[in-house]
Amino acid sequence: MDRFECLACGPLASRDPYSPFCTGCGEPLFIAPGVRSGGKVIHEDRTLALEKFSDFLPLDSIDPRLSLGEGLTPLLRLERVGTALGLAGVYAKNEAQNPTASFKDRGTAVAVQKAVALGIRRIGTVSTGNMAASTAAYGARAGLDTFVLLKEGTSMTSLRVAGIYGPRLVAVDGDYGALFRTSLEIGKKLGITFMNSIDPYRMEGYKLTAFEIFLQLGRRAPRTVFVPLSSGGHLLGLMRGFADLEREGMISAYPTFVGIQAQGCAPLVRAFDAGLEKYEPLTDIRTIAHAIANPTPPAGNAVLRMIRERDGLLLAVSDREMLDAQRELAAAEGLFCQPESATTLAALKKLAAAGLIKERDGKDVLVLTGSGLKTPGLLESAPIEIHRVPLEGLEAGLARLF
Amino acid sequence: MDRFECLACGPLASRDPYSPFCTGCGEPLFIAPGVRSGGKVIHEDRTLALEKFSDFLPLDSIDPRLSLGEGLTPLLRLERVGTALGLAGVYAKNEAQNPTASFKDRGTAVAVQKAVALGIRRIGTVSTGNMAASTAAYGARAGLDTFVLLKEGTSMTSLRVAGIYGPRLVAVDGDYGALFRTSLEIGKKLGITFMNSIDPYRMEGYKLTAFEIFLQLGRRAPRTVFVPLSSGGHLLGLMRGFADLEREGMISAYPTFVGIQAQGCAPLVRAFDAGLEKYEPLTDIRTIAHAIANPTPPAGNAVLRMIRERDGLLLAVSDREMLDAQRELAAAEGLFCQPESATTLAALKKLAAAGLIKERDGKDVLVLTGSGLKTPGLLESAPIEIHRVPLEGLEAGLARLF
Repeated sequence: MDRFECLACGPLASRDPYSPFCTGCGEPLFIAPGVRSGGKVIHEDRTLALEKFSDFLPLDSIDPRLSLGEGLTPLLRLERVGTALGLAGVYAKNEAQNPTASFKDRGTAVAVQKAVALGIRRIGTVSTGNMAASTAAYGARAGLDTFVLLKEGTSMTSLRVAGIYGPRLVAVDGDYGALFRTSLEIGKKLGITFMNSIDPYRMEGYKLTAFEIFLQLGRRAPRTVFVPLSSGGHLLGLMRGFADLEREGMISAYPTFVGIQAQGCAPLVRAFDAGLEKYEPLTDIRTIAHAIANPTPPAGNAVLRMIRERDGLLLAVSDREMLDAQRELAAAEGLFCQPESATTLAALKKLAAAGLIKERDGKDVLVLTGSGLKTPGLLESAPIEIHRVPLEGLEAGLARLF
Repeated sequence: MDRFECLACGPLASRDPYSPFCTGCGEPLFIAPGVRSGGKVIHEDRTLALEKFSDFLPLDSIDPRLSLGEGLTPLLRLERVGTALGLAGVYAKNEAQNPTASFKDRGTAVAVQKAVALGIRRIGTVSTGNMAASTAAYGARAGLDTFVLLKEGTSMTSLRVAGIYGPRLVAVDGDYGALFRTSLEIGKKLGITFMNSIDPYRMEGYKLTAFEIFLQLGRRAPRTVFVPLSSGGHLLGLMRGFADLEREGMISAYPTFVGIQAQGCAPLVRAFDAGLEKYEPLTDIRTIAHAIANPTPPAGNAVLRMIRERDGLLLAVSDREMLDAQRELAAAEGLFCQPESATTLAALKKLAAAGLIKERDGKDVLVLTGSGLKTPGLLESAPIEIHRVPLEGLEAGLARLF
């Protein structure tokens, strides 16, 4: 039996298996770190990411048949981006190279391993995009009956990209924040295990990104980690991953975490700037960054607490800044990510411009959460120069471009 | 200096560096396998795919700064698909998990390493999609001036997805087959190194897929390898990879290769069935599978020769068969690939139905060449069931779906 803990209330005696929230205070639950006599070890010789880091996961065994080959994504040095900012060690962790092209797969992989181990046959999620595709894919792989609840009005492309895996697709008309909580209640009644954004097992999967960054930097922690911030689950998972490494004595300095929201939907940045312990839910959303536009982030208060405890930072960037950063990552480094992912570079540039990051000897990691192929429509606003030439005029046409 | 060879004429004394064709017979050129005293070794402990297999590549050194983390893609067992066909060992090699979501990255990575090593500053390609994005991405990563020639009429999405990397995008009005050859002539005049589909260095990169499959199967060759067939470069690269392993004594049995075209554009299958040495170019294309709809495949005759020499097989599948297979791979196994990639499963099913593949002890590998996210528009023809419910009716709505 896994043990659970709440950042506010500490270890929990019991837990509702259909809820990711603390029955005491309503904050999200986490799996309490287990203890391994002799310490935890990274098994670098094993094949799957889940196997390499199994000492740190709440899984008694790992069924490779449920894997789609998630994780083990590249950490790429961004030399041109770094040089322009006067920083020597800027890196991108490219989560777009996951099976369904987003970081969500790491969390879904762990949650589905757990579900299958527990004999669960029905799973579900509430999503507008990346998590829908990820959960549908892993549900299909595991042969589970998978329910994907989407907000009425979700783009047909997102629906089709999740629908190809054959889940039950349900478009729900109503408030999205309410849908998140309602799904959990109904899941309990009907026996559907909803693995939403802050499911504790899902967050365990995100720890692996921290472990991989640690290995890829030569068993060192980076100076900073930039993560787009929506529900809070991804950021918290990464933070807990580095806390695991610290607990095992593998790192000495804990990285500075920077969580980034879109200016048009930044309830946590507002609360952080105002020094509040709890954020005010928003109702109005004005951003193209749908994947991080969460007006009622379920782990929001836990993020505020943990970012403060660890001397981290929350900040917001504009749509223009993230779209410019998206283009810069592609044109300068060959990486085409979602605008939401490019918020990380936009934030790094802000901090560098403000002189808050400047020493040349630290390593700064941008977590690129998903592929730009997920939202090609967003490119329509960007200028694109196409030179049209007839075949017989090709030589002159190309020479003119030199 | 690398040595070149032609399958028809043998080793070459000299070569036009701007042409991938044999000056003697017009067939494609390959890099002649080098010899290493003491034999070639796979360096499993190294990080990048290019480093692991460097003994088999025509690169004196590897610059990790040019890499986007290509290769090392998962090989996944398809248990449900295999069971349905009475086959125990069906696998998918998921090339969609490459940096720009297609197999092209493996070839571009090698071609760009070579270009930079030679001091080349201008590169180019002729493509309708995957290769455009891949070449533009690696060109951006290497800081090269990159020319992407596309057929007039290429979808705006494809243009934008390549254009985000900032190459010179040139839409050319004229015959696509002629454009391929014209680009090489103009490249020579203007000093642009075109790395098109059958560039010899590009094909070297495709060998790595063979090496990885070999490792992932426990240092064994599969029984069959299914590969979508367009220009012929990918198939030939894979075949030469296994030939390298055979030459080094690493495998004893050479796999049976199955190249698959779309029925609406199958010049090589026609020639293969008719027992011809040279194929007849087509003019009419009737398929949704644009990525493999090549009416004048530049390595077509080399494919016919090598497939016959190695007792391989070429066959065609219909658009309906590939779309059904695309859906089956997603719904049964959690893999969303391009329809062109799903031709591999459609072909396996044909061969299994005909009793041509049946022994249970062999391993059959489907090479899934690219992500379904590249062509979400193709999903529009597929039925998708969306259940619409109001939030207050969610419980009853979900219960009805059990």
